[in-house]
Amino acid sequence: MVADSNLLTRLRGSDPRVLPRLATLIENEDPQGLHALESLFPFTGNAHVVGITGPPGSGKSSLIASLVQQIRKSDRKVAVLAVDPSSPLTGGAVLGDRVRMMEHHVDSGVFVRSMASRGRQGGLAWATAELVHLFDAAGFPVILVETVGTGQDGVDIAALAQTTIAVEAPGLGDSVQAIKSGLLEVADIVVVNKSDQVGADDAIRVLRTTLDLAQPPHRPRTPILATTAIEGEGIVDLACAIAAHFSQLEETGELARRRVRALESEVLVALRSSLQRSLTRKSEQSSRFTNAIDRVLRGEMTPRSAAALLSEQLASG
Amino acid sequence: MVADSNLLTRLRGSDPRVLPRLATLIENEDPQGLHALESLFPFTGNAHVVGITGPPGSGKSSLIASLVQQIRKSDRKVAVLAVDPSSPLTGGAVLGDRVRMMEHHVDSGVFVRSMASRGRQGGLAWATAELVHLFDAAGFPVILVETVGTGQDGVDIAALAQTTIAVEAPGLGDSVQAIKSGLLEVADIVVVNKSDQVGADDAIRVLRTTLDLAQPPHRPRTPILATTAIEGEGIVDLACAIAAHFSQLEETGELARRRVRALESEVLVALRSSLQRSLTRKSEQSSRFTNAIDRVLRGEMTPRSAAALLSEQLASG
Repeated sequence: MVADSNLLTRLRGSDPRVLPRLATLIENEDPQGLHALESLFPFTGNAHVVGITGPPGSGKSSLIASLVQQIRKSDRKVAVLAVDPSSPLTGGAVLGDRVRMMEHHVDSGVFVRSMASRGRQGGLAWATAELVHLFDAAGFPVILVETVGTGQDGVDIAALAQTTIAVEAPGLGDSVQAIKSGLLEVADIVVVNKSDQVGADDAIRVLRTTLDLAQPPHRPRTPILATTAIEGEGIVDLACAIAAHFSQLEETGELARRRVRALESEVLVALRSSLQRSLTRKSEQSSRFTNAIDRVLRGEMTPRSAAALLSEQLASG
Repeated sequence: MVADSNLLTRLRGSDPRVLPRLATLIENEDPQGLHALESLFPFTGNAHVVGITGPPGSGKSSLIASLVQQIRKSDRKVAVLAVDPSSPLTGGAVLGDRVRMMEHHVDSGVFVRSMASRGRQGGLAWATAELVHLFDAAGFPVILVETVGTGQDGVDIAALAQTTIAVEAPGLGDSVQAIKSGLLEVADIVVVNKSDQVGADDAIRVLRTTLDLAQPPHRPRTPILATTAIEGEGIVDLACAIAAHFSQLEETGELARRRVRALESEVLVALRSSLQRSLTRKSEQSSRFTNAIDRVLRGEMTPRSAAALLSEQLASG
């Protein structure tokens, strides 16, 4: 595939329609969009991808709206990708947020997009990764990805971010839930939002204890920040913590490792989806893959052994 | 791999320690356990796997306890696999359930097992599938798999069942949540448990409307059953509905298709995990797989194109 600097110029240029159009084409797996992504891919790998996850009611959307305002003060462009389709950021419920994001809509330095494609092949995490590549190529130095963060999808999406923020709020009874789904373990920064509400101090204390017990002693402590997003409180500190985390990743070389891991994982998701598609096509000619599946169906080998065989075949040559 | 009828005899024999030992070895991916599974695999494919999913508080565990009692009345063996580690079925909170399951513990026709291995390679769904093969080979005609059913894991685990039951309860505010996570779409039977509580009729009405809107007109309507598990109410009807669904799957040939789909999906999960492992091993010799990854890292191709290339290589031969 040949890098297309002409397309890049249009994408980064003054026509605000290019980016949303490409995003739609890529999200729908339209060949034109995928071809464009191919030619833009060499220009990716520069953005700071920040995953923001938390249960409904934790105020993620208000937090993101405030964070966008804060980042814009330093004149950096920001893209926001809301993976939760019910997110108020992109047309949902909360009026205050909508008004706030409307302000950003006239600001060409902010691009807000919602993922609609729950049913897409390969799951939400893959679609998210491809849109992140687009925003990255479009020159956004910061990309915020908002997810509900329950279950596997949340963790998968966290895997493509370089910085993951877990948002909690007092009184949701969700702290334990978040721990269960593995989110706290992958969080680089924990935020207790709605910190003006009763129970915020308790929530922070419980989270601190849980994190300290879970973390190996030689690693830096995961910061826990208190915010009240709708008042803008704690947002400057949060923006600083995000920037500090990025610098730390750069200095230790961890940034490069996280980018590599995210791309490796994306290849594996795409491979699974591609093989799944080949099964539904049921091409008549035998192949290594369908032969292995057939042997499993005849009870001759377990799925695990079939996978080991296929994996060896990919490791040869 | 050679089918081992000697091991099979011991597994189906009178020594009650063989099954839990093998389950532990397989869950831990111990080579001895995986070898045993390989030799038992030809004897699988007979069980009716029933997935029971629902949010915390819907009373899944009580429902399963009552259902086990009901199934035992016809003298059929039942295995229960609780994938939610906090399930009261396997040592958790609710006393009543524990007492009920204790009664089953002296009954050799009931085997109850909890999955402890959240962090296992390839995720919970794969580990669940391997234990289901074991119970299947051990001769349990019915295997109940209990999951929390939020997020991807829940849907993946539903994919390995032939019958999926979504459990709701009034007043959880979770009906919409379940719809979002895609569970209602995959449910073959919907249960509104705690149907003696206020709001049960409303919950049934909302679910009925939602299901009718979502389902294509030519397909049979998903049954919605009201149960009060702790009173044993509605359990006979539920057991009948499960048996009826199984017969219907058999008659239409859908049973075989679901088994095939589950095994195909298991091969793909196993392949992803196997390739991921080969990445962390970082073997020095170049391979098709690591070459493709390297090209992605150099920005020469997208993860999607790399996956298409690898998929083609597996389709050849």
